[in-house]
This record gives sequence, structure tokens and C-alpha cells, in this order.
Amino acid sequence: MTTTLAAKIARDYGTPALVIDMDRVERNIARIQAVCDEAGLANRPHIKTHKSPYLARLQRDAGARGITCQKLGEAEVMAGAGLDDILISYNLLGEEKARRLGALLAHTRVTVTADNPVVIEGLPPAAEIGGRELGVVIECDTGRKRAGVETPAEAIALANLLKETRGLRFAGFLMYPTESGWAEAQRFFDEAVAGVRALGLEPEIVSTGGTPNLPNVGKLKGATEHRFGTYIYNDRMQVAAGVAGWDDCALHVYATVVSRAAPERGIIDAGSKTLTSDTGGLEGHGLILEHPEAKIARFAEEHGFLDLSRSNTRPNVGDVVRIVPNHVCVVVNMVDEVVMVRGEEIIGTLPVAARGRLR
Amino acid sequence: MTTTLAAKIARDYGTPALVIDMDRVERNIARIQAVCDEAGLANRPHIKTHKSPYLARLQRDAGARGITCQKLGEAEVMAGAGLDDILISYNLLGEEKARRLGALLAHTRVTVTADNPVVIEGLPPAAEIGGRELGVVIECDTGRKRAGVETPAEAIALANLLKETRGLRFAGFLMYPTESGWAEAQRFFDEAVAGVRALGLEPEIVSTGGTPNLPNVGKLKGATEHRFGTYIYNDRMQVAAGVAGWDDCALHVYATVVSRAAPERGIIDAGSKTLTSDTGGLEGHGLILEHPEAKIARFAEEHGFLDLSRSNTRPNVGDVVRIVPNHVCVVVNMVDEVVMVRGEEIIGTLPVAARGRLR
Repeated sequence: MTTTLAAKIARDYGTPALVIDMDRVERNIARIQAVCDEAGLANRPHIKTHKSPYLARLQRDAGARGITCQKLGEAEVMAGAGLDDILISYNLLGEEKARRLGALLAHTRVTVTADNPVVIEGLPPAAEIGGRELGVVIECDTGRKRAGVETPAEAIALANLLKETRGLRFAGFLMYPTESGWAEAQRFFDEAVAGVRALGLEPEIVSTGGTPNLPNVGKLKGATEHRFGTYIYNDRMQVAAGVAGWDDCALHVYATVVSRAAPERGIIDAGSKTLTSDTGGLEGHGLILEHPEAKIARFAEEHGFLDLSRSNTRPNVGDVVRIVPNHVCVVVNMVDEVVMVRGEEIIGTLPVAARGRLR
Repeated sequence: MTTTLAAKIARDYGTPALVIDMDRVERNIARIQAVCDEAGLANRPHIKTHKSPYLARLQRDAGARGITCQKLGEAEVMAGAGLDDILISYNLLGEEKARRLGALLAHTRVTVTADNPVVIEGLPPAAEIGGRELGVVIECDTGRKRAGVETPAEAIALANLLKETRGLRFAGFLMYPTESGWAEAQRFFDEAVAGVRALGLEPEIVSTGGTPNLPNVGKLKGATEHRFGTYIYNDRMQVAAGVAGWDDCALHVYATVVSRAAPERGIIDAGSKTLTSDTGGLEGHGLILEHPEAKIARFAEEHGFLDLSRSNTRPNVGDVVRIVPNHVCVVVNMVDEVVMVRGEEIIGTLPVAARGRLR
């Protein structure tokens, strides 16, 4: 049965091709919406995974409250397609960004993020261009050592700066706790929220994030929402993290075995320009469903190097195989469109409309 | 002076932005053409690095004979823009590819590659659709263990199969020797060419490849051409390999420092969706020209993590920095356009027309 679909994909589109199963997509959307509903949290899915307004609307229609974008360019694509209530979970800097943000704000509800005064000081022109107040959440680092202030005192100081800055509004806190960092996040939040209340402020949004945090959703007392991203497709990292099974992986990369120069090795037509070199901390670059013992050992740009030394069954030149990538979010970003299927039936293609919107 | 250009780029385009200096591009093109001319070899540049018909024409006008593409989709874009004499250095498989290859062949000189009988057996329909003979080069593995037959005997057998297959023509040999593998490549070639001559065949094309092979160009007696790719832009890998200096690096990624949550760390707005996780075997993910002691230590999708522990000068939030990426070919493939400059002057944007043509 899978052979039949693989043959159809190869015939109609060629390989490599990214194929999403809409039955699985819809099941993943419903499952995570139920998790949020049960936790009493708003679901604000992160569109960086799929970059598709069509899929964002499916998430919204299933009950999501707004969406999350990582880049202004993603937000512009989503707003242009009618999505509203957009949280940009990223520091925006520079006049060019402020101008665009203002234009977006004029017709869309947008909230942005800051973890330092320089970002905040650059935002008032956006509010002015947009003709309305701009809400800003303070990003708090709770162990990931990425962006985010390191202490509640800094968060409170930034909230105070927002309070004093014309055109801006303190909107709350953004957190992305590590899977083991939720107790620390609670301590951080409790101190920060007490501090902002002493300033007469109240957070509207207290946002936590991450699909691997599925077991932790609802643990932060005071949280208002969670940002799930990868769950819509899932990948080998989510399976490794224990938050998805292989049947929850809605995106497969179809690739052709193009060379088998020796018994213990081979080449597929998906290299680092398709599967990307993001390992997600895993050994090998994806699971080949038809040959789970085969290892995608390394890449050239358009060559995936198969190590077949541990494989009992070995693919032949011309075989089409299905791969669950390590990190699906970066793989989707490589292509202009994905092929939609439902079970064995091909529906058509779906544009990855916000692909490559890196600014 | 560089600050001025950085400010203009940030103002007009925002960051992250890929910026190419046309003075350097033209110098790189001229330099490598001279190397090929001196070696008495045709120059068949690999367009996978720039994916731009405009730059391919510059290479052609400087003296290149034809171009190399890694994917059929790249060749379609180049042929559509008027480039001719295209070598696709990749095994093409499947009916969908054969149909498209035939359509391409009808109006463009195309040579393709094979390292096994299955590929060859699938090619005659392309010749039939194209209405003319299709030349095929045999890919030979000379130490890289990627694609390519492992022995001269296999190469000779495939040449014989080509001779016996209606619509196809044995066109020669494709090699991509490792930097230390040229003596082995010579032995392989000598045996293979003797074998095909015994069949009454003569190679038109004997193609070697790789920018890191710059010191070896011309070493293979019997070679007719070399495929240089990365040289047009160069990158940190080429500098590490000793075939380019920093001033030969024609592409810089402009990024903004968006967060500095602690003294010894920071975040730039270029993560794995911009710079990619291709390390090229190097430590760190690129050289920041303004802060060479800073290390781009790791990535999230849109976050580059700076380790500033060894830096004497540390960037501030809002600073725009220039990065020489580790592997420029994959970085170019992330964007729809690059910004062209000449010294300090911005010329405009150039589409990366064949970006994402993965099939």
C-alpha cells in the first residue's frame, strides 16, 4: 500500500518530495487543542513549523487563540492571509523592522517581545505608524540561555520602562522553559509578577512554549497560554523526547535511492539541501521507514550517504523510501510546497507561504 | 566605512541579509578562469553555489565552457535563462525525471551522469522525447565514497552498455577526487580509458571537480575540464583549505545582535534557518569579521548563540555584524535573493533563481 503512494508521488512530483498526511495533521491539531483545553490554557500554535496560512486557519478553527511567529516576515504572510492576534516571539530591532511592524499593527493585533531596553526604545515608531498601542511581552530566560532576561529584577525594570514609554503597553511574560526547568520558571514568574503588580501592572499574556514540554503544560501557575509548534507534523526528535509516536509523524520526505556503489553503502537524492544538517542531537539524519536499520550517516548538498552495514534488507537503486526527518521545522523551510495526501490518496500541493521569511 | 554599508543594508533591507560584493565576485571568476586557461582545461563552473543565471552568464562570458548543475531543476532554470551546454553531475532516476530531461534536451545541449545500469536503462525515453542522442558520462569514485563506480571494470561495462543502448552515447568520465586522491584517480582513469578505447569509444569529457582541488587542477593527464563551484563566493571552508583568503570571500551574511542577556553570551538574528547547521567540519558556525574571537557556538532556528568568553570587544544589542559562513553554497540556498554591492555602494538585489530546486 505504501508502495502505491510512493510510486504515485514519484510519478507525479518526483523526489525528493515532502509529503504531509492530512489525517495525521488534523489528529495532531485536535490532540494538542484538547491538551490545552484540559489544562485551561489558550493554545497559541507556533507557525514556524508549517509556515502555511491554510494550516494556521485549521489550528484556529480547531480552537487556537491567535498564533505565534518567530519573524516579522512570517507575521506579514499570516496577517496578509487573514490571521489575527499574532505574537512575534522575537526581539525586533532597527528602523526597517519598526516601519514594517507599524504597517502590520495598523490592521492586525500584534504583540512583540523584548528582553532589553534597546529593543523597547526602538518600538515607539511602530506604534505611531500603526496608530495604536503596541503590546510587548518580556522574554524571561528560564534555563535555556538563549534570549530572555536572566533575573526577575530585570524583567520588572523592563516592565517599568514599557509603562513609561509612550505608545507601548506591558503585555506580560514570554517563557520557554527547559523540560526540567519548570520549578525554576515558577520561582522566576512569581517574583516577576509580584514586582509588576507593585508597579500597578498585570500580565495579560503569560506564555510558555515547546512541543517537548507537552508533559509540563499547565504546570506553571499563572500561565495563560502555551506555544506548541512541531506537534502539527512531529519528527524524530519528538519521538525521541517521548511526546509523539511514529504514527503521529505527519510529514515524510520521499527520496529515491540513486546509487549503490558498494554492498554496505548507498546514496539517496536528499542531502543537506533537503533534510538539513540539523541533527537535533540524534545519531543519524532521519529514520527510513522501509529500512529502519539503515543509517543516514552524513550529507553532501544533494547526497544522503546511507550506511547499510547493519541492514538486513537493503534498498535497490530506484527504490523510493520514506524518511521521518530529525527536525521537521527546518526541513519544511527548504521547500516552496509540500504534497498533501490523505492516507493513500494525493490531494494536491500546499504552498509553504512563509518559507525563507528570515527577516 | 564598513559601518556605513552595514547601516545602509540594515536600513534598506533589514537583517539577516546575504550580501555579495561584485568586485570580489568578478575577481574570483577571472582568477579561476585564468587557472583553467593556464592548465589547458575547460572551465565548467558548478552553479549549485550561486543558483543564478546572471552569475552563470558572467562565468560564461569570462570564458567558461558550459556549466554544471547538480539537479535537473537547476538545469531547467539555467536553460530557461539561455544557458547552454549543461552537465548534470547526478544520477537521474524515474519516469518523471526522464520526461523533464527529454523536454530539456529538445532545446539544450545536456549531458547526464550514471554510475549504475538502472540509471542508464531509464534514460532512453529522455532521448526519445528530446529527439536527439543523450550523452552520458560515467561517474567514477576516486576515494570520496559518494556516488561513482568503484572500479575501472565497472566503468568500462557501463560504457559498453551505453554503446549498446539506443539513443544514448558514451560521453566520458566524471570524477571528484579527494584532495589527496589524484594519483589514484590517474590510475583509475588510465585503466578505464584503455578499456573504453578497446570498445572503440573515446571520452569527449573527462571532468574533475571541486574548489578545494585548486592546487591539483591539471594534474590528471587526460582531463578536459574542471568543475569549480564555491570559488565564486568562497567561504570559511575554502579559507581553511588554503584556497582563498578572507578578502576573496565575496558573500557576507549581515546579522543584528538582538540580545545580550549576559556578559559572555549574545544572540544574533541568524540561526540554522539562515546560516544552516552545515559545519564543514569546522569549529563554530562562521567568522564574525568585527569580532573574530566571538564564536557562533550553536543555533536555534532563528537564533545564533554567541559565545563571547574569549572576546575582548563585545558587540552591543543593535550592532550589525558581517559573517563569513562556513559553507556558502547551503546558505545561498536559504534565500530568494541576495543584495549586490560594489565596495560601499548598494547595486540592488539578485534573485537566487534556482534556490530550492531540489528535484
